[in-house]
Formats: sequence, C-alpha cells, structure tokens
Amino acid sequence: MSSKNTTVRADLIIRAEKLITMSPRQPVLNEVEVLIREGRIESIRPAQEISGYGAHEFIDARGCLVMPGLINAHCHAAMTLFRGLADDMPLKQWLFEKIFPAEARYLSPENVYWGAMLAFVEMISSGTTCFSDGYFFQEKTLEAAQKIGIRGLVAQGVIDFPAPGVPKPEKNLAVAKEFVERWRGISTLLTPSIFCHSPVTCSEKTLQGAMELCLSNGVPMQIHLAETLDEVDSVVAQKGMRPVHYLERLGILNETLIAIHCVHVDDHEMGLLSERQVAVVHCPQSNMKLASGVCPVRELLSAGIVVGLGTDGCASNNDLDMFGEMDTAAKLSKVASGDPTSLAAGTALKLATSEGAKALGLGKEIGSIEVGKRADIIIVDLGKPHLQPLYDPVSTLVYSAKGGDARDVIINGKVIMRNREIVTVDVEEVFWNVNKIANKISV
Amino acid sequence: MSSKNTTVRADLIIRAEKLITMSPRQPVLNEVEVLIREGRIESIRPAQEISGYGAHEFIDARGCLVMPGLINAHCHAAMTLFRGLADDMPLKQWLFEKIFPAEARYLSPENVYWGAMLAFVEMISSGTTCFSDGYFFQEKTLEAAQKIGIRGLVAQGVIDFPAPGVPKPEKNLAVAKEFVERWRGISTLLTPSIFCHSPVTCSEKTLQGAMELCLSNGVPMQIHLAETLDEVDSVVAQKGMRPVHYLERLGILNETLIAIHCVHVDDHEMGLLSERQVAVVHCPQSNMKLASGVCPVRELLSAGIVVGLGTDGCASNNDLDMFGEMDTAAKLSKVASGDPTSLAAGTALKLATSEGAKALGLGKEIGSIEVGKRADIIIVDLGKPHLQPLYDPVSTLVYSAKGGDARDVIINGKVIMRNREIVTVDVEEVFWNVNKIANKISV
Repeated sequence: MSSKNTTVRADLIIRAEKLITMSPRQPVLNEVEVLIREGRIESIRPAQEISGYGAHEFIDARGCLVMPGLINAHCHAAMTLFRGLADDMPLKQWLFEKIFPAEARYLSPENVYWGAMLAFVEMISSGTTCFSDGYFFQEKTLEAAQKIGIRGLVAQGVIDFPAPGVPKPEKNLAVAKEFVERWRGISTLLTPSIFCHSPVTCSEKTLQGAMELCLSNGVPMQIHLAETLDEVDSVVAQKGMRPVHYLERLGILNETLIAIHCVHVDDHEMGLLSERQVAVVHCPQSNMKLASGVCPVRELLSAGIVVGLGTDGCASNNDLDMFGEMDTAAKLSKVASGDPTSLAAGTALKLATSEGAKALGLGKEIGSIEVGKRADIIIVDLGKPHLQPLYDPVSTLVYSAKGGDARDVIINGKVIMRNREIVTVDVEEVFWNVNKIANKISV
Repeated sequence: MSSKNTTVRADLIIRAEKLITMSPRQPVLNEVEVLIREGRIESIRPAQEISGYGAHEFIDARGCLVMPGLINAHCHAAMTLFRGLADDMPLKQWLFEKIFPAEARYLSPENVYWGAMLAFVEMISSGTTCFSDGYFFQEKTLEAAQKIGIRGLVAQGVIDFPAPGVPKPEKNLAVAKEFVERWRGISTLLTPSIFCHSPVTCSEKTLQGAMELCLSNGVPMQIHLAETLDEVDSVVAQKGMRPVHYLERLGILNETLIAIHCVHVDDHEMGLLSERQVAVVHCPQSNMKLASGVCPVRELLSAGIVVGLGTDGCASNNDLDMFGEMDTAAKLSKVASGDPTSLAAGTALKLATSEGAKALGLGKEIGSIEVGKRADIIIVDLGKPHLQPLYDPVSTLVYSAKGGDARDVIINGKVIMRNREIVTVDVEEVFWNVNKIANKISV
C-alpha cells in the first residue's frame, strides 16, 4: 500500500486557514488541508470544497493557526511535584536545603509517575508535543509518557552522589546502561538517553563512561553545562580550564552531546561547541529566576550552533509553557544585547520547533509540517482578545499567544487533545494523585 | 441605612476557600465570605454553613484563589489596534516609521473606541480591574471603559507635535484642560488625567502648564521618564542635566506626578524621586522588547518610592497580561542583579495590586480586599495543570498563573466576567469591529 495511493482514506485531515509549516521553502500556507496517515503527514493540498473528504477523522481549524507542536528541549518532568515549594532563594540554599532533600525524601517510582504525568498534561495543554527530560526513576516517566501519548527523549539521571533510585553512586552508569538498553527502539515516540547532572557533580570517569554508553547505543547524552559562574569557577579551580575545554579534554564533545544552559561560555568555547557539533538548549526563564545569567543565544546561533529551547524543571520556572518561553527568549536577548532586533520572533519560533527538533536528534522526523514527517501538530485558537487583530502570525505566536490558546494537539497523527480536552488520560485523576503526594511534602 | 445593618441583604457574597487580601495585617484568610454592598466590601466573615445566605448574588470560589483585581499602571489601550504590526526593529525606526505614521493615518475617535474596548476585554479576561492610560481621543477610551465597567485613570496625551485629534500642538494643553474639566468627578470608576509624552517631546512650558492643570484639578499627571539612554542623552545635551533633575528644575516633581519607566535613573535621581514622593511605574516586558534597559526596581523600592507595574502599549509587549508582567518583573530583577532573592513573588504581587493602587493615587479605595474598600476582586481558577500542586498561593499567582486563569472579575461590586464570559459587552462584536479596522491598516 503506497502512501501516494489516494484511494486509501487518510486517518485525519486538518483544514487549515493558515498553516505555519516552519519549512524554509514555504513558511506559511493559506487555505490548505493536511492529510495524515499512519502517524505521518501524507500530503498537503489546497482546501477542498467539501472539507475533510476522504478521512476517518476531521478537524476544522479555520479561525486558528496550525503549526508544528512545540518542543521543550529541557525539563525535569516529575519536578512539577515541587512547583512553588521554594522560590526566591540563593541557588545553593534552594538546591541543597530544599530541592535535594525533597527529592531524597519524597521521590519514589509512584511519585515520579504522577509528577511526570502532571507535567505531560500541562505540556499538552500548552501545545508542547515533544519533551526532553533528565531525572530519576525514568521508567516511570516513560510509562506516563506512553500512557498520555507524548513524544520524548527520556534520560536517566547520572550523578556521583546517592540519588533517588540509585543509592550507590558507583552503580549509576550500570543503572543508566540498563535503562537505555531496555528502552532503545521500543517505541516510535520515546527515545532513552543519559543525563549527566553537571561537570562538577560527575567525575571524569562517569562522564566518559556515559558518553561511551550513548555512542554505543546511538542515543543522545545530555548535560547541564556552564549554567552558573560558580560552576565555571569550580571547573577552572579543579581542572585548570573552563567547562567546555574540560569536556573537550575528556573527548566527549561531539554531536551526541546536548549541552544545556551554556550561560557562561566564551567565544573560544562557542567555537569549540560549533566545531564539535554539540547542540545547546537555552532555558531563559530558569536562568533568570535562579539569577544564573543570560545565555548568549545570538552569538551561539551566529557560531552555527543548533539551539533548542527549554523550560527547565518546574521548581525553577515555575511552569512548562513554551509559548511563554519563546516570548521571554526573544525579549531577554534584546534587553541583554541592547539591540531590539536581536532574536526576532521568527528565530524564537524556530528554537521551539525546527531547531529544537535538530537539537534532540529528531530533525528528520519532527519540527516542521512537511510531507513525510511525523504528524506532531498543534492548533492555536485565534478567537481570544489577546490574539486580535492578526497582522503577522509569527509575531502573534511568539509575543501574544499563551499555552492556554492551544485548542487541539496531534502527536504522531493521533489527536491527544481536542477542544482543550485531553482524551488519553483522566486529568482529574492526575490532579487527585498529585495533590495526595503534595499534601505529604514539606521542606 | 448603616453598612453594619446585617438585616439588609448584601448585593454579592463571594465564598472564598483562600483569600489573598494584600492587607499587611492578614495577608491570607481561609474559608471566609466577602460581603459586598453598594460597590464596597461591607464585611469579611467566616464561611457560613449555608454559603451566600443573605445576598442577592453569590459566587462560589472554592477551588480558587480570591484576590484583589490587578492594576495595570501604564498602557496605551487603543494601541491594541497595532499589536504585532511592527516588531523586532530599532526603537526610532519602530516609532517614526511604523507607530507614529500608523497613528497619524488610522487613529480616529471611532478606532480609538474599538481599540480601547479590545484592550479592556483583554484586561478583564486576564484579571485586570484597573488601568492607567495615556493616549488621544480619550473621550472614546472613557466611553469604552464606562460601557464595559472597568476602573481607570484616563489621561489625555500631550505632545508638542501634531497629534491625533490635536493637529495644532499649541492647542494641546487647551484640549487636555477641557478633557480633565469635563470628566473630573463624573464617575466613581473613571478619573481623568494628563499624560505628557516625555521630557524631550514636550517643552518646558508644556510640562509646567500640564502640571498646573493637574494640580488645580486635583488629578494625577503622567510622563514617560528616563525610558532610554537616548532620551537621557538628549536631555543632558539640551538642558545640561539628567531628566529627573530637569523636571525638578521645572518644579514639577511632586506627588501628583507618575513617572513611567525610570529605566535610566541614578542614585541621586532616585533620592529626588523619593523625596518628592513621585510614583514610578515599571514596564519590564516593554523595556525588554524595545531593548531600553532594566529599571532598577529593587533600588527604587529601597529608596522608599511607590512603584506600580504596567504592560505599556500592545505595540511593544504585545499583550496586556499582568500575570505575565509580574512573573517577568520578578525574574528580570533577579537576573539583572545576579541575586535570586531580588523582587520576590510577594513584592511582584504588591506592585500589581496595593502599590499600583497607591501609584495611581487610589490607594485608599482599591489594591487590597479590606472592609470599606471598593470591591475590585478577581477569582483565579486553580483547576489547571500549571497551578497544581499548591504550596504557596503567592508563588502560584506570580510564577505559574496566567491571565487566562482568571475565572470571574468583579469591579466596584459588579460582576463583569462570570465563568470567563464578559457580561457587559458583546466580545464578538468587539472582535468584528477591530478586525474591520485592522484590515485597512498597513504601514
């Protein structure tokens, strides 16, 4: 059965008045239908007189913007459990007195499942169709993701301290190895990965071992890198060089690596990241809230580095709204550079879609609405006061739209949210379980 | 009829599970009822067994947060017409090639009415109950505000150039005088005011004349002040002193003045603003988007200055969501100062409520939920994924809530939005008229 056989019905047709493809050739298409079959975009054709003809399911997206689903390239999903538990504190106090103790005391496989599930409900409700996550008890994050039907890169956390589910640090790579080998290739939607906490909390051996595992399994490796000046100072003090140079010396700078934050990287480090084809993930709101600094996104992009956008965990943001993150990325770049043309709306939208997909190694499958790609599509309802009038859809999406404007969400061709109702899980049950857990949490 | 006569029915009772009063004495009250009569808060009593007993109207706000309505202390309401018309441009090009021409060409009383009405629909939809506006054709802004039922300070724009509705600059103060005298005292909800565009676009005579008018009419005067380095440089070049000193020399620094932006003010200027009891309005998102710089809010507050929060106009933000503005204010202050404890959530919430009220000269009437004050109250629906779980209501409101979470809005004791439906105007009619205007706009 050829995908070009037009006598076979499509699974889903979306009738778009305005389609933001994020494909460089035809960025915006007007009055078209997107035909989806077996999880992929089969064709895009001019709107028919009778819309939706020849499909099992039909979505009328007139009065809306149709666009690729947003990609949250860095988060810690289950940390929704700690949303608002501790704010406005010095970073070390926040981490060591609040977050680490809360994790040690309250994380269990069950709690990670419900925390991650809440994160996915929030993501889908705000138009995110793909996430990248680094945490612990990750089989539970995978389980929740599978249940709700979201796409993701799920990384087992690795740190050279006792960690949730990994009480003996010397076993951390063994746990990660088992996780990656067990889940690799098991799902179209989910890819396992390894997440090393940072260059100061993981030893040389751990970092190199993690990279070796990732290379041999063909999965990405993630790391928090150059997030704070403290981290840079520690690495310089201990290793006699800056963090990016240190990873270069370890031989782990390559296209398998996703470097998160990169707030404090100098020109030479940016050159090295570019040369080694390391992807970077920018988390502006988290960097602001923790007062870490401002990532030089514009310079990273000028250096030819692929940059994705992420919310980071809910304990340092405190939400997972990628619309808000795009807006902040664009505005922060302007004020930090003193240049109002810096990081224009179109660039912000790329970071959250096509570039984010590339950063996660999924550039061929998602990130734009093009024939042959996976159908990860969202429909943004324009019938809101803050989205009126409409001169430029890209400006509207970046500077005016909010997560709550996502009306429908399609992932891998399947309708996951329709008219703001998530169809795959019982949201009230998720809230109930999260609150049951949260009621016991105090730090 | 005494307001303490409990045999008389209240107009409205709100049953709150959690009431954020913004009163220093009792910031949070649990399980109470707020009784409203004749536009004011008559009493706050423990929740009754049968809720809402003895009122004409009842709102059950269990599962919600009840709080004072947000105060947008600076905007240009009708500029919603230009939302997304021009972004990511150098400030002067944006202003002189896009915004000023668009205003000259497309502003008419009719268009200001519908632009302002769209702004008020957006404000109410996002939990704002009071605004401060500076623009032209302001009788139309007042008319729209009256129709929808929002509270506001509406200032006639004054600039020494030909302006919409004021083709002859020499008449600008006469127009402002007529406006203020006509509308002063005419409504409980609306206060007229005068808005001088900036120290570089208004002459000494204009600035002094405007202040004289405001003082003699007992209404506030507003001005954009120290928004950009260019402005500071111009004032220094032309007047031989920095902007705040220049206004001091003109004798117009006093408690009647509301100074908007104050991005580039030095310690001495802050001292002077404090001494003269000038209120300041912080517009973080607009300052970021236009790359104007970062207002030293923390320092202003330390100097004892009253600071409100505003979105600025939709052409430089591009929305009127005060929840987003609180979040940005808190995060921007942290990253700019390198201190994650800077501008904590509680402070951000004050800027948008009690302090904003003081900045507009309405501190005795609104800004907190206390017996005797005007009943400007909003109800935030917690049943959203991004608002789960709830550890700290203030953190939740500032770092997680969005405008779209406002479920009900009460202004001056009247329910203006109930369950997300605005009851005073036909929102579809507003959209229709705005789009009819926008379809003709191109620059």
